[in-house]
Amino acid sequence: MAYELYYWPGIQGRGEFVRLALEEAGAEYADVARGRGGESEMLRLMNGESVPRPPFAPPFLRSGDLLIGQTANILLYLGQALRLAPAAEDGRLWAHQLQLTTADLVDEAHDTHHPIASSLYYEDQKREARRRSRHFREERIAKYLGYFERILERGGTGHLVGEALTYPDLSLFQVIEGLRYAFPRAMARLSSAMPRLLALHDRVAERPRIAAYLSSPRRLPFNQQGIFRYYEELDAPAPKTSSGAAAPCG
Amino acid sequence: MAYELYYWPGIQGRGEFVRLALEEAGAEYADVARGRGGESEMLRLMNGESVPRPPFAPPFLRSGDLLIGQTANILLYLGQALRLAPAAEDGRLWAHQLQLTTADLVDEAHDTHHPIASSLYYEDQKREARRRSRHFREERIAKYLGYFERILERGGTGHLVGEALTYPDLSLFQVIEGLRYAFPRAMARLSSAMPRLLALHDRVAERPRIAAYLSSPRRLPFNQQGIFRYYEELDAPAPKTSSGAAAPCG
Repeated sequence: MAYELYYWPGIQGRGEFVRLALEEAGAEYADVARGRGGESEMLRLMNGESVPRPPFAPPFLRSGDLLIGQTANILLYLGQALRLAPAAEDGRLWAHQLQLTTADLVDEAHDTHHPIASSLYYEDQKREARRRSRHFREERIAKYLGYFERILERGGTGHLVGEALTYPDLSLFQVIEGLRYAFPRAMARLSSAMPRLLALHDRVAERPRIAAYLSSPRRLPFNQQGIFRYYEELDAPAPKTSSGAAAPCG
Repeated sequence: MAYELYYWPGIQGRGEFVRLALEEAGAEYADVARGRGGESEMLRLMNGESVPRPPFAPPFLRSGDLLIGQTANILLYLGQALRLAPAAEDGRLWAHQLQLTTADLVDEAHDTHHPIASSLYYEDQKREARRRSRHFREERIAKYLGYFERILERGGTGHLVGEALTYPDLSLFQVIEGLRYAFPRAMARLSSAMPRLLALHDRVAERPRIAAYLSSPRRLPFNQQGIFRYYEELDAPAPKTSSGAAAPCG
């Protein structure tokens, strides 16, 4: 039975966390909204009056009779169905806990370019975005990624949960990808503090199905409509030159 | 076996969603950080080097050998343990999906007073808070609560999930309480559009164990340190008087 993924076409966004799980497992799925008429079907499932359990927002997944919304909830389901999480309760909860922590980081990354309202253009909240981004770069990225680095160090297996790859590993790979795209200078500065995390990122990228996916047209490129966006002014300032010509306040 | 809840003392915050589930079920629990030495024990569990699966942030729950973090994840667990969610997979996932949607609303409510950084005082992001709050009041509250109202209408049972009370009902009660505290004028204006939601709120408040809890010293009052805070300038402007003396831009 094929899964149906519903997500905005044109961006990786939150849908990407689901795609990576489906791809790693070699699951058969349709990325519905990227096909003809798919976007209206997606909107119908959200807004149609006859849908008994409509999702609040994409992504959502159809699996047989189930219609499952909320990224982390979809992964909770797929973790079992695709064996991308432990079957035992303690490991299942731990994997989900890490996923939810990753989701918090993703929310904060989104709000760096939209600190006032998602309904406004970036250009209409640029000043606030600069302020929020500075705190995100200087406090939040290191706090979150430092946490995951500690988890990897404590576990000692090279994976976040137990001995094998689980869906939080895939999601963390995606977060590292996204943060490197959006904050290349800030991430370069932080990289020496997270060797285990970067090693996990690289191992995920090299997994045969993930590598095939990443080089396929199914993988959309990052762009300026998604969660992770690159605006030079939101990344860390470039290192000062030795000329000392830089103003004291950047 | 008693549960141990760990959360910042002095505020309802995200811990309150867990407290409401424990109270409704009549579960035995200790609110550890509110007791002597409890806050340092909480910090040790987060930061201590010997904790194999440290939570990123409070709240977290100890249940026997399990240490469970992330509010929605705790409720996923308690939903089964305390029979506050369906046992069947579809109902379990649906309840969790609604909880995660509620959590998104709670995050947005928090960011109305902290749109730039949690590490800054409200006073240092007051201007941005006014802007963000306006969008939250005028777009987001109605979008989220309108969604839950539709779910109640479609279900027709007076509960979000199935025929009986589940943990998302309790959480939505708390969100209504919090929004009414933080945005009394905005909520008063919206109230006619959500009769089912307000009826559910009232039924939750009248449940014997919840009513007993709400009038006990265990229920902390809302205050200006929590997620839901009342700042007059962030609520909707007062209705204009007929004198026409109000400035054209509020």
